[in-house]
Amino acid sequence: MDDRLQAVDAYIESHLPGWMEELTRLCAVPSVSARHEGIPECAALCAELIGRRGFDVRVHQTGGHPVVLGHAPGRSERTMLLYNHYDVQPPEPLELWESPPFEAQIRDGAIYARGSKDDKGELVARLAALDALRTVDDGYPCGLTWLVEGEEEVSSVHLPDFVERHRDQLRVQGAIWEEGGVDADGAFSLALGVRGLLYIELHVEASARDGHSGMANLIPNAAWRLVWALSTLKGPDERIRIPGFYDGVTGPTPRQRELIGGQDTSEDEEALRRAFGLTRLLGGRTGAEAVGGAAFDPTCNIAGIGSGYQGEGSKTVIPARASAKLDFRLVPGQDPRDITQKLRAHLDAEGFEDVRIEVLGGERAGVVDPDDPLVAATLETSKEVYGKTPRTSPLIGGTTPIFLFTEEGVPVVSPGVGYGGNQAHSPNEHMRLEDFRRAARHIARVLLRFGEL
Amino acid sequence: MDDRLQAVDAYIESHLPGWMEELTRLCAVPSVSARHEGIPECAALCAELIGRRGFDVRVHQTGGHPVVLGHAPGRSERTMLLYNHYDVQPPEPLELWESPPFEAQIRDGAIYARGSKDDKGELVARLAALDALRTVDDGYPCGLTWLVEGEEEVSSVHLPDFVERHRDQLRVQGAIWEEGGVDADGAFSLALGVRGLLYIELHVEASARDGHSGMANLIPNAAWRLVWALSTLKGPDERIRIPGFYDGVTGPTPRQRELIGGQDTSEDEEALRRAFGLTRLLGGRTGAEAVGGAAFDPTCNIAGIGSGYQGEGSKTVIPARASAKLDFRLVPGQDPRDITQKLRAHLDAEGFEDVRIEVLGGERAGVVDPDDPLVAATLETSKEVYGKTPRTSPLIGGTTPIFLFTEEGVPVVSPGVGYGGNQAHSPNEHMRLEDFRRAARHIARVLLRFGEL
Repeated sequence: MDDRLQAVDAYIESHLPGWMEELTRLCAVPSVSARHEGIPECAALCAELIGRRGFDVRVHQTGGHPVVLGHAPGRSERTMLLYNHYDVQPPEPLELWESPPFEAQIRDGAIYARGSKDDKGELVARLAALDALRTVDDGYPCGLTWLVEGEEEVSSVHLPDFVERHRDQLRVQGAIWEEGGVDADGAFSLALGVRGLLYIELHVEASARDGHSGMANLIPNAAWRLVWALSTLKGPDERIRIPGFYDGVTGPTPRQRELIGGQDTSEDEEALRRAFGLTRLLGGRTGAEAVGGAAFDPTCNIAGIGSGYQGEGSKTVIPARASAKLDFRLVPGQDPRDITQKLRAHLDAEGFEDVRIEVLGGERAGVVDPDDPLVAATLETSKEVYGKTPRTSPLIGGTTPIFLFTEEGVPVVSPGVGYGGNQAHSPNEHMRLEDFRRAARHIARVLLRFGEL
Repeated sequence: MDDRLQAVDAYIESHLPGWMEELTRLCAVPSVSARHEGIPECAALCAELIGRRGFDVRVHQTGGHPVVLGHAPGRSERTMLLYNHYDVQPPEPLELWESPPFEAQIRDGAIYARGSKDDKGELVARLAALDALRTVDDGYPCGLTWLVEGEEEVSSVHLPDFVERHRDQLRVQGAIWEEGGVDADGAFSLALGVRGLLYIELHVEASARDGHSGMANLIPNAAWRLVWALSTLKGPDERIRIPGFYDGVTGPTPRQRELIGGQDTSEDEEALRRAFGLTRLLGGRTGAEAVGGAAFDPTCNIAGIGSGYQGEGSKTVIPARASAKLDFRLVPGQDPRDITQKLRAHLDAEGFEDVRIEVLGGERAGVVDPDDPLVAATLETSKEVYGKTPRTSPLIGGTTPIFLFTEEGVPVVSPGVGYGGNQAHSPNEHMRLEDFRRAARHIARVLLRFGEL
């Protein structure tokens, strides 16, 4: 290891409390995008933290939640995009949190709060890497463009339009995306693709008002209508029944299949089963298939459903209204607009013209060339930090709008602070401090190598 | 009309404000049985109001909500049971109320509040009849036993046991039940039977905690499990698919069919459609079939369903838990315990062993002999009060535990304050003041005739 890297690592090792203070401030802003809470405050705080690192930074209005965009020069002509988001998932169910979700608490070597990992922890790990590089190396090794949006958790509704309108400020040669981290063995794991997403809400209004259930065979019931409509979308075999849904779905390429097959995934599968208290994964998936292969199958998930009386005890009512939130994770070859049209046609054909579709967000899948030099640099430098052979996943289950850059030929990588037990999107979300230190060291190395490519 | 009746009517006409004050006090106690709110307070208030009418009254503990039981002597040896309940349905959805649900408000000739009709308004109409009889006639025409329970809206869980344990205090020759009233034409309408009820909650716990929906094809989803289980119970054809569910269901007897057929129900059907904003009733039911005949078909109603994220916007989560409240309205020949067993067997056979059944209440149906003298007296006296030919329904859609007395051979009738637009169980529940006056006059007449039978 050269002296410069030793100095970077030493700097990161000795300055942790300052970054945890910044992360605590960030997590204290309850920037729940689904509810439009704390949004301008959190954008302003991000701009402040980034501006303090020598970025020329501006908060842009988008029609939705603002985007923070900053630029900093570096020694190389090449520019790296840093993408993060300052919004978080709702904290519910609150009763399952061991400490208040918006008051970060450090315990047992980890920091707990909504956003402590996803994605405020990731953002602060980059601040740490940049602080170390600036101090040790007297500047940045490459140009940097930092984009922080506030709608990632609600499908990045306004981001595509923002990116199109600011392409001139977003000409980059590589990108470090939202999140990354280690697998159950502690080896760095790199995602080379993410799924797309179609998020909708189905609404039924079966009558003008709730009725007494003594009339249940006279007055239509919105909950029944919704249950029947939903049951036509997918059955216990998990096969999605919307005609044409799988059109264009080709499964992994031979190169992607090679990457799936090369992974040792038995521990991931076991960790997953343990975390969710399961004796088997859905469809009996095991090993590589479970962890890597599953992402190549698109999904239809009920994220929420509600109708009628949900309080304590009994109420004999015919609900007039019912709704369900559904997310479809899409794979390369699927387009959210096309799927929406097919869903509408399917519901109509099945006699559910009364079920209204509200589209809450749509993004396409995105994939990265496994043989890009930035990918190679990211994997190589990870060995030094994590001391293990890294893994790559050709496609992961989640969604984040890398398609906005991968479709322009920009390679996207993701050194980061995560591990399988983070509980992102769940109660007791946390980031392990050791993951933070290693992610900062890794990010610094990736930027140094990128500047030299 | 004899002088006595004229004096009763005049008394009722001139004392309305006092009873509305008593009703306002009753409605101010938010005695929502599903939430165990305001229960002892409401029982005590009922005992106070009844005691003030010369009843020897006691509040009995039951293991659930207390029962108020009072006795008053009369000129005849015969004793009439008055049955009411002091509990009410939850007021939700609150935002649809035009005035606060527990602050009674008189406007446009009606009194609005949760319970203003069901069942506190009914109870106060009896107070009015008794006040008039006591004053005009210097006492009651028959013995009176008044039973007011606090769990009617949650399936009268403890009432059967209470009644069995107090049979010696409940030897009566007739009963005036919970509620009654007029049809869309303003003619008195008498129910000669009520359906039974099985109220259950289905619970699914599919994994130990909510997951990120990127793993939706790895982690089981409780909402999907519940939707699939529900969809096996009933389809859009409204036929209930639980094997053996219809065993013992015989439909109306010839005498009951005669009563259904003799009714002019075109206006009821239209009123129902208008109230619920429907172009047609479920299954295209029309006329007599809709209003009278539908009750002979048992139902399976989703009263509530909930799982996952139901807030604003989107959250990408795999719900670990889901639950649904269902009520089955049962007809003569069905028993709630038997139906519960058949439901369990059905869910198991369909692969839903993971769906847990929680029983929240069960009651059998109850029917009255259409040719009983008390029935005849009730119908005859209604003509004088309402000026129209009354109607009878052999079986109505709702449930109330008359089976506890009809199975002992006691005839049950129900003069009362209702009309089709009361919005009982819904926002803006109300009682029209004219319905109150007429019900009080009718009840007084029924008691006078009963004393002479």
